[in-house]
Formats: sequence, C-alpha cells, structure tokens
Amino acid sequence: MSPQASATAASGHDAGAGKPARAPALAIAGLITDAFAAVGLPPHDAAKVAELMTEADLTGADAHGVFRLPQYVKRIKEGGINTRPDIRVTKTAAGTALVDGDNGMGHLVMARTAETAIELAREAGVGWAGARRSNHAGAAGVYAALALPHDMIGLYGAVSSANHMAPWGGIDMLLGTNPLAAAIPAGEEAPVVLDIATSVVSYGTVKNHRLQNRPMPEGWVVGAKDGLPVTDPSRMDGLLLPIGGYKGSGLAIVIGLLAGVLNGAAVGRDVVDFNADAKTEANTGQFVIALDIKRFIALDQFKAGVDRHLRDLRGSKLLPGFDAIRLPGEQRRKRRAERLRDGVPIVPELMTQLDKLAAELRIKPLGER
Amino acid sequence: MSPQASATAASGHDAGAGKPARAPALAIAGLITDAFAAVGLPPHDAAKVAELMTEADLTGADAHGVFRLPQYVKRIKEGGINTRPDIRVTKTAAGTALVDGDNGMGHLVMARTAETAIELAREAGVGWAGARRSNHAGAAGVYAALALPHDMIGLYGAVSSANHMAPWGGIDMLLGTNPLAAAIPAGEEAPVVLDIATSVVSYGTVKNHRLQNRPMPEGWVVGAKDGLPVTDPSRMDGLLLPIGGYKGSGLAIVIGLLAGVLNGAAVGRDVVDFNADAKTEANTGQFVIALDIKRFIALDQFKAGVDRHLRDLRGSKLLPGFDAIRLPGEQRRKRRAERLRDGVPIVPELMTQLDKLAAELRIKPLGER
Repeated sequence: MSPQASATAASGHDAGAGKPARAPALAIAGLITDAFAAVGLPPHDAAKVAELMTEADLTGADAHGVFRLPQYVKRIKEGGINTRPDIRVTKTAAGTALVDGDNGMGHLVMARTAETAIELAREAGVGWAGARRSNHAGAAGVYAALALPHDMIGLYGAVSSANHMAPWGGIDMLLGTNPLAAAIPAGEEAPVVLDIATSVVSYGTVKNHRLQNRPMPEGWVVGAKDGLPVTDPSRMDGLLLPIGGYKGSGLAIVIGLLAGVLNGAAVGRDVVDFNADAKTEANTGQFVIALDIKRFIALDQFKAGVDRHLRDLRGSKLLPGFDAIRLPGEQRRKRRAERLRDGVPIVPELMTQLDKLAAELRIKPLGER
Repeated sequence: MSPQASATAASGHDAGAGKPARAPALAIAGLITDAFAAVGLPPHDAAKVAELMTEADLTGADAHGVFRLPQYVKRIKEGGINTRPDIRVTKTAAGTALVDGDNGMGHLVMARTAETAIELAREAGVGWAGARRSNHAGAAGVYAALALPHDMIGLYGAVSSANHMAPWGGIDMLLGTNPLAAAIPAGEEAPVVLDIATSVVSYGTVKNHRLQNRPMPEGWVVGAKDGLPVTDPSRMDGLLLPIGGYKGSGLAIVIGLLAGVLNGAAVGRDVVDFNADAKTEANTGQFVIALDIKRFIALDQFKAGVDRHLRDLRGSKLLPGFDAIRLPGEQRRKRRAERLRDGVPIVPELMTQLDKLAAELRIKPLGER
C-alpha cells in the first residue's frame, strides 16, 4: 500500500469535493440540536446527539458528524427511529450489563452504554456493556474515548449499518466492515485512539472517490461477479476488501458475533441497510468495554510507559515516501485543537444540503449561526 | 492477495520442507514432558506444558507446538526461564486480576491466567486477567479456546517475543506482530477460533520460505533501508508489513499497550528477542478476557444465532480462485480430528532436531514412543 493511499484512508473524509467553508463547532452543534428538536427529540436528547456528532467533526471523522444529519432526519421522519425511547440498562453481573436502546438514536444509546461500562469498571475493574435495539451511532472512536477522562481504557465494537463485505473467498455481501475502536490514556502524549473498520477503506472513501470521479487504487474493491480489481468508483457492484484477507474477514465476523448475536441484535442477513431503508427498525448492536488502569498498575507509571513507547515509535527512522510517523490519536488531538480554533471545514456540497434541510425544518441555517 | 498466499499464511506451517512422518499426539506429549522434566520442570508442570504445546500441534499451529521444544530447552538451560516459578495471582477487583509469572514457562502462566479470567467471569460476568513476567506461550488460539468448555467467550492478546515490525511509515523494528485471538462457542458448527498476528504473514512463514528457498509474493516484507518489496526470503533485513497498513500497525500498538505496559511487562525497545538471547528474563506480557455468554442472552439462543450466521457466510457464492469459504475455527476442528486419528505430521528436518535433543537429554526419541 502506498503512503498516499493510507493517508486518504486515514482521513476518513467523504463529505465531498470543493473548497470548504469553516463553521464554528458551536454553530454546528446548534444546527444539529435545532434539527433534531424540530423532528421530535426532547431538547436534552437533541443536544446530547449534537454534542457527540460535533465531536466526530472536531476530531476529523468527517463522515460521521454533521454530514450524517440529513440521513438521520430522513430516518426519523420516515419512522425508522424512536424519538422518545425508553433506554433500559440491565446490570446482569458485577461487570456486565445489557442496554436495550428501544430503537432510539444510536448516539444516545451508545453514550448510555459507555457510561454504564465506566460505572461497572469503577466497581469491578472491568465493565462490558452490550447494546441491542440501537442505531448507527457515528464515529466509533468517540465512544471509546469517553473512558479517557476517567483514566480508563475504552474499547468499542459495532455491527455496521450496512453490509459492504463478503466473507473471505466469497461474494455475498453478508458482512459489515464492523469497526473497532480503542482509546488508551497517555501522559503528555495524545491518548492513543484507534478507530478502524475491518476493510482496507471505508465505503465513505469509495463514495468520496465517486463524487470526485477519481480512480481508486487496486486492493480496495473487487467486483462481486468476477473478483477482479475495481478502480472505477462509479461501479456500484463492488465489494470492499478486508484488511489482511482472511484476517480482516475473521475480525469482522468476531466483532459481529460480539456486538450482534451476543446482544440479540441483527447480524448478517438481518442487517437493515440504512442507506436504502429508512423505515425498518435496524436493531443495531454495539458494545463498550471500560477497563480501570489502576487495577493493574499505578496510573503515573502507566502513562509514563505509554509516553515512552509512543515517543520511541515516533522517533523511528522513516521509510522513503513518508514524512512522519503518525500514531493513532495524534492527528485527532491536533485536528481537534485546530478545528476548535478555526472551525470545522464544511464543503460546498454539504453546505447546500444543510441549508436545504434548515429551510425544510424552518430552523436557522448554519451560515447565520 | 491471492487465495494461494492466504492459504499459506493461514496454515502457520514453518516446520520445514520434506515429506512429513506422522507422530501420535500422545507420543509428542510424552517427548515434551520428558524433555522438560529432564531440564528441571516439576513433572506436573512438564505435563501441563506438553498438553498445551501438543494442542497447538493438533490444531494446526505447527510453528507453536513441538517445533519450539529445542528453543525452549535451550532457554531453560541458559537460565532464561525459571523452572520452579511461584506464579502469583492477585485479584484486584471483582472482574480483574494481575498474574505475576515469576519468569516461568509462558504456557503455565497463560493457563493460570486463562483459568483466572474464567473464574472471574463466573462471578462478575467478565474477567480480564493480565500477566507480567511471563514468557512465550505458543499458540494464542489455545488460550482463548480454554474458555469454550465453560460456554464462555475467550479473548487473548500478547506482546510478541521479538520485534519484526516497525510503526507504519517507519523502519525501526520497535513493534511486535502482537497477536490477537478470539474463541466463540457455536452450536453444531465449529466454534469460531480466530488466531492472527497483526502482520500480513508471520515471521515463521518467512523462515519457511527461506528453508525451502521459495520467493515470497510482494506485500509481505519490505527492506528496512529502502522500503522496497523483498521477495528473496534469504534477506535478513526485512520488515514484516502490518495488515491494512496503518490499521494493523495501530492494532499492534494497542495490543502492546494492553498486554505490555498495562501489566508492567516489556514492550518496544525493552522486548528481549528470544531468537537471539536465551539468557535474559523476557518479562513477556499477555492478557486473557473471559466473557460469560448467559449474562447477555440464553446460551441456546446464542449458539443458534452463531450457527445461522456461520452457515449463511459459508453458503456465500465463491469468488473465482476459491474452492470454499473457510471460516475461522473450521479448519482447526477438522485438523484436530484428523491429527488425533492419523497423528501429527513431523517434517524430516524437525524429526532430526528432536532426535538430537532426545539424545542430548537421554530421553526416549519420538520414533520409539
């Protein structure tokens, strides 16, 4: 894989081409809050979803922030999401809980699930909270990172809201690119935050290439009929390839069983493609694990050890074609500081969509906030 | 990646070329037991290590079974491993424990760590047991699979016993191919057992190509100086490439922090290369997580859901070049049954080494058992 390919994959941008305007984070959060309130979410819930979506925008997960707002609003309007859910947490043992999301916004269910895992870990050292009847919750890293202020490690896994992979060797799209995220506190260094799909690139990256009419390198997508490399992003019959062949496919299966079947949530053929169907309850499954560091080692010692290892890694001599070692979480922290200061880039295509949505919902458009 | 490449990578064979003889599992376990007893392990410990190493051979992790015996014996003789360890388990909360392996054989430490995680999970729903001052423990999948008879899910992670990777974009070998394993019970289907390194192929696979003088495909190894593909397996300056570029590199970092730094074990520059140094205590770190399924869903319902998903995946139409979908754990179960019946294949090069070792230790050689 070329460094260029990986940089594109890492950025997670799929919000479209064109020179972006910059919108303050507070303005984005305000737009999202008003939009969800307009379609029936209680104000407090609307603000909570807005906070979590804006966090995705701030940290660079551009495909999972305000970019998703029109799709979520459509889903609510068509009845696919319950705006007044009774989210129920059942503690099943000292370290485990099952969360029934009552088909509410995934962000609300996941925030509750992460809080539950953290509470469990405070007592039991580790907390594993699974969710059923949840929905697409945006950026995986945001939920893993909720453990960080508690000096805990957070892990997150989810069944994707559409199947874009096949099991390794096959062509039937029965597998999501089921993402995995990990957040690990550091000392002076940025916390390690890894947020990856089990495919080489996300479907968002393919859509972005389609939008910009840019050919894709080989190794991202193969044709579902012939298994040959697809480089034309306009072709709609492609399969995303898993990282490491059978390894990424196996990881996606394992995450699907842990986040889906274990929680009584949908997996495989039962997954509702949320791009194609805005009406049917998705029964999305996710899990959050929180781990209390001080049950293993003194916190200072842990953070110093993480810092030292990260600095060693960053100090590695470079391979030709690379200008720096980028450690997971480092760009995220830089981007968050920069975007808090300068605003979040919103490409013209997205601004047009958001203005149209604001007009429909009779709320103040982003540019006037 | 071609299906051929993946089949090679999946097999994990690096025990050498040549037509293999077949040795009964009991004969292998007997040889291993006698060898460890001859170098000072208490009989019960020697038999326990033998059982776990033979399990690796039976399930197809040929690079992690009896193949390792000469190396382990050398390490014990040179003082790198404590033959009479006082392995101490400290329960630190309802769901967490830290195991100090006292530099004993990694297999003993990991068996104890897995038992601890399972005990914790019985009470707390989830158990996370970390180990420090451990050693190379062989096949990751063996320890994850210890949860299966308890109708639990097992997860395992480890810091590799040598660094064969660099952080993505770099060339300094500061990163292990830190493996991850997961074991998930099924109903009639084989349990899902995924056992993967975070590199595209293992170093064992490279050594196997070297032994057989077979060129390697591009995408496995790059030169540490120029970053260009290395296809000549005799070149010793190669870096193993991570799966999915920055993704596999990030996974290796996360596993290293969870298995190493969190447990007060070695990571990065502190890792003792156990191929080059048989004297220095390695302070290997690993973790085992056990998760009690019935805290989330009725066991029957879980197993039926796993079976259904696995059958759907296996029923997928095939990509050209593949003759079947191979799900993680399926080959393992078939191979175990076949090898229990027909014996474990031992290639001539390995047999020669084992005969030499038996003569040195004055124990009965494999062929006479």
